[in-house]
Amino acid sequence: MNKDIFVQLLGQRQFKAVRSILDVMNEVDIASLLSELDDKELALAFRLIPKDKAAEVFANMETSMQTYLVDMFSEKELKELLDDLYMDDTVDLLEELPANLVNRILDTVSPSDRTLINQLLNYPEDSAGSIMTTEYVDIRQSMTVAQSMAHIKETGIHKETIYTCYVTDKRKLIGIVSAKDLMTTDDGILISELMETEIISVRTYTDKEEVAQLFRKYDLLALPVLDKDGLMVGIVTFDDAMDVMVEEATEDITKMAAINPSEKTYFNTSTFAHAKNRIPWLLILMLTSIITGTIITKYEDAFAAIPLLVSFIPMLMDTGGNCGSQSSTLVIRGLALSEIHFKDIFKVIFKEFRISIIVGAVLALTNGVRILIQYHNPNLALVIALSLIATVIISKLIGCILPLVASKVHLDPAIMASPLITTLVDTFSILIYFNIASLMFRL
Amino acid sequence: MNKDIFVQLLGQRQFKAVRSILDVMNEVDIASLLSELDDKELALAFRLIPKDKAAEVFANMETSMQTYLVDMFSEKELKELLDDLYMDDTVDLLEELPANLVNRILDTVSPSDRTLINQLLNYPEDSAGSIMTTEYVDIRQSMTVAQSMAHIKETGIHKETIYTCYVTDKRKLIGIVSAKDLMTTDDGILISELMETEIISVRTYTDKEEVAQLFRKYDLLALPVLDKDGLMVGIVTFDDAMDVMVEEATEDITKMAAINPSEKTYFNTSTFAHAKNRIPWLLILMLTSIITGTIITKYEDAFAAIPLLVSFIPMLMDTGGNCGSQSSTLVIRGLALSEIHFKDIFKVIFKEFRISIIVGAVLALTNGVRILIQYHNPNLALVIALSLIATVIISKLIGCILPLVASKVHLDPAIMASPLITTLVDTFSILIYFNIASLMFRL
Repeated sequence: MNKDIFVQLLGQRQFKAVRSILDVMNEVDIASLLSELDDKELALAFRLIPKDKAAEVFANMETSMQTYLVDMFSEKELKELLDDLYMDDTVDLLEELPANLVNRILDTVSPSDRTLINQLLNYPEDSAGSIMTTEYVDIRQSMTVAQSMAHIKETGIHKETIYTCYVTDKRKLIGIVSAKDLMTTDDGILISELMETEIISVRTYTDKEEVAQLFRKYDLLALPVLDKDGLMVGIVTFDDAMDVMVEEATEDITKMAAINPSEKTYFNTSTFAHAKNRIPWLLILMLTSIITGTIITKYEDAFAAIPLLVSFIPMLMDTGGNCGSQSSTLVIRGLALSEIHFKDIFKVIFKEFRISIIVGAVLALTNGVRILIQYHNPNLALVIALSLIATVIISKLIGCILPLVASKVHLDPAIMASPLITTLVDTFSILIYFNIASLMFRL
Repeated sequence: MNKDIFVQLLGQRQFKAVRSILDVMNEVDIASLLSELDDKELALAFRLIPKDKAAEVFANMETSMQTYLVDMFSEKELKELLDDLYMDDTVDLLEELPANLVNRILDTVSPSDRTLINQLLNYPEDSAGSIMTTEYVDIRQSMTVAQSMAHIKETGIHKETIYTCYVTDKRKLIGIVSAKDLMTTDDGILISELMETEIISVRTYTDKEEVAQLFRKYDLLALPVLDKDGLMVGIVTFDDAMDVMVEEATEDITKMAAINPSEKTYFNTSTFAHAKNRIPWLLILMLTSIITGTIITKYEDAFAAIPLLVSFIPMLMDTGGNCGSQSSTLVIRGLALSEIHFKDIFKVIFKEFRISIIVGAVLALTNGVRILIQYHNPNLALVIALSLIATVIISKLIGCILPLVASKVHLDPAIMASPLITTLVDTFSILIYFNIASLMFRL
C-alpha cells in the first residue's frame, strides 16, 4: 500500500475508500502503515480499521503509538480494545505504559482479569510466565470428538491458538489432543482414547530461552505452562518462541561484541544509552591492554637493539586475537544451541589443539618464507614462525576454555568472546614473542 | 528414558517391554535415544518403533544413522518408510546419501514421486524451493465448510500441516482458509465467502532467509510457494522456518568471527575441515597487519627516542578494534533483522559520530588522568588522550560504514565484522598515534 495515497484519501476524508483499503490489508502491514502517520491522522485511521482487526493491529504497533492511542481513547473504546486483546499482549502493553495509563487500564478491566494481569506482571522478566497467555482450549477426557469440536466452535474464536487442546481434570493437565487429530478422527471417539499422555511442559519460572529451545527441538505449536503446584496456568505459542529465539541470538551477538545488550532497536536506543552500553567493557578492556603495554616496557632493550622487532607486534597480536575469537565464537554458539556442554571440555581442548597445530604451521610457513625473502634473515624468520605457532596454540586454547568455564560457573559464555579473548591473548603473544626473540638473539 | 535400561532390555530381547517404552516416547526423544546405540542394536530397535512413529523418528535421525538404515532395509521396509516420509524430509535425505543409495530410493518410489523429487532436488540450496514440501490441503471455493472438513478428514492425515488450507483454481492460488476459521464457522458457509484473498506468498527462488523473516513478521504457520508461472507448488512450514532462522544466525556469528561457515555441528566437523574454514581469513588478516607493521618501521626514530611510546601500542590498537567491532556488530545485526537499511547510512554515521565523541571523551579522560598520575608527564597524557579520541571516532565510523557498503554491493555484511574491522582500524590507530606523538614531541 502506498502511504501517500493513503494519507491523501484520509486527508480528503474519503472514509469509504480508506476502509476498503484497510479491509483487505494484513494487520501487520496496517500497523506499519499507521506508524508513518502523525498522531492526529493515526487516531482517525485507527478508528476506521475493521473491528475484527483492530486489536491485532494495535498489538503490532510500537509502544509510543500504543501509548498515544490509550491516552486518547474513550472509556468505551478502551474497553472494546481490551476485550479483544490477548492476555499476553495486554501484559506486554502494561509493561511499557506510564503509570497513569496503567491505572486507567486496570480500572477498565474486570476484577478477575485484573487479578490475572497482576499475577502475570509478577513473573520474572525472562521466565515462561512472562511470555505465556492464559487463553487456551480446555476440554475433558469424557468428551467425544464431536463434543470437543462443538466446544471449540463455541469458545474457540477468542483463544490465541486452538490447534492444541488441553485435557484437564481439576486444572491438572492430563493429556493433549491436536486439532489435526480432532479433524481426522471419527465423531464418536472419546478424548480419553485419543489424547497423548506423554506431555512436554514447562513451569512458569522456566527460562524463556529454554522454552524456545523446546519449540525448536520438538517442532511445537504451543507449550503448556504449569505453576509451582503442577496446575495448568497458560500456554506459550510458537510466534512468541520465535521472537525469543531471535532476541536471544541478538543478545548473544551484542554481548560478544562487548556491548551491554539493549532491548530496543539500534535507532530506538538514544545516543547516550548507546554510549553507556559500550563504555564499561571498553574501560575494562583498556585496563587489560595497559598491562600488555607494561609488559612491553620490560623489553625496551630488545627493541632498542633491534627496532625491526616492533613492526611484528601488530601481526602477532592480531593473529592471536583472531585465532582466539574463532575458537571462542564456535564454542559459545555450540553452548547456546546445546551442541557443546561443559563435560565435553577435554574433547574440545584436544580438537582445538590439533586444529591449532595445522593453522599455526600454515601461518608460520607463509610468514617465515615471506620474511626470508624480504629481509634475508633466517633467524628472524625462525623467531616469527615459532612465535606464531605458540601464539596460535595458546590463543585457541584460551578461546575454547574460557567460554566453557564461564558456562560451568553460570556466567554468560557470550562475554568470553572476541574482545575479551583478543585483549587477554595479546599479553600472551607479546610475552611469547619477546621471550623467543631474546633467546634467539641473546638480548 | 534411561539409555542403559533400554539397552539392557533390548539385549535381553524383551521386545514387549521395549515396545511399550517406545510407545509412549516422543519421536524426537526416540531418535536421540537411538543415536546412542551401536549399528546392530539400532536396526533392531528401529524395527520395534510403532509404525505411525517410525517415519518421524527416521526424519529426526542423523545422516550417518539414516544411511546405515537405508542400506540395511529390505525393499518392503524402504517402501513403507518412503510412503510415510514427508516429501521435504525425503529430499533432505537424498541430498546427504551416497549415490548408490540415492538410486535405490529413486527406484523404489513411484514414477510421479520420482519426477517430483528430481524437481525439488534442482532448486538452489538457499531457496524456498529447497525447504518446501509438496503436501498441503487443497480445496475449491465452491465447497462448503462441511465439505472442506470432510475433505480434510479424508486426505489430511498425510499432509504436513492441515492448519492452513489453500483454495486453488487450476493450480492458481486464489485464497486461504485457516483450520481455525473452518472449525468456528457454520457448516453451510461457502469457502468463497470465508477465504482471505490478500495472500502472502513466496516464489520457489525466494531466498530462504527472506522466507524466515516473513514467518517472523506475520506470525505464520505456513507460507505458500509459487513457481515462476505463479502456480502453487508447495508450502514452507513454520518448523523449517524456525530452523532457517537459527541456522542463519549461526552462519552470521561464524562469519563475524572470520570463519567460513560449516553446515555441520562443531564436533561433526573434522579437525582438517575446521582448519580449512579458519585459515583463509587468518592469512588475509595477517597480510593486513603486516602493512600496519610496515608503517610502524617508518616511525623507528620516534620510539628509539622515546621507547615508552611502544608500550601504548597494544592499548590503542585494542581500543580501536573493540570500538570498531561494537559499531559493526550492531549495524550487521540491524541489517540482518531489517531494522537498518542502506538508505539510513547518514543517520547511522551521525549517530555513531555522536556516540564516539562521548565514548572517546570518557576513555581519553580516564587514561589521561592515569598517565598523569603514573608518569607525571602532561605532554604524554595529552598525546594518548588525543590519539584515543581520534582512534575511537575513526574506528566507529569505519565499523558502521563498511557493513552498510557491503550490503549495498550485495556482499554479506557479516564479513565486515570484528576481525576485519580490528585489523583495518589498527593501521589507522598507529598512524594517528605516531603522527600526534611526532608533532607533540617534535620528533
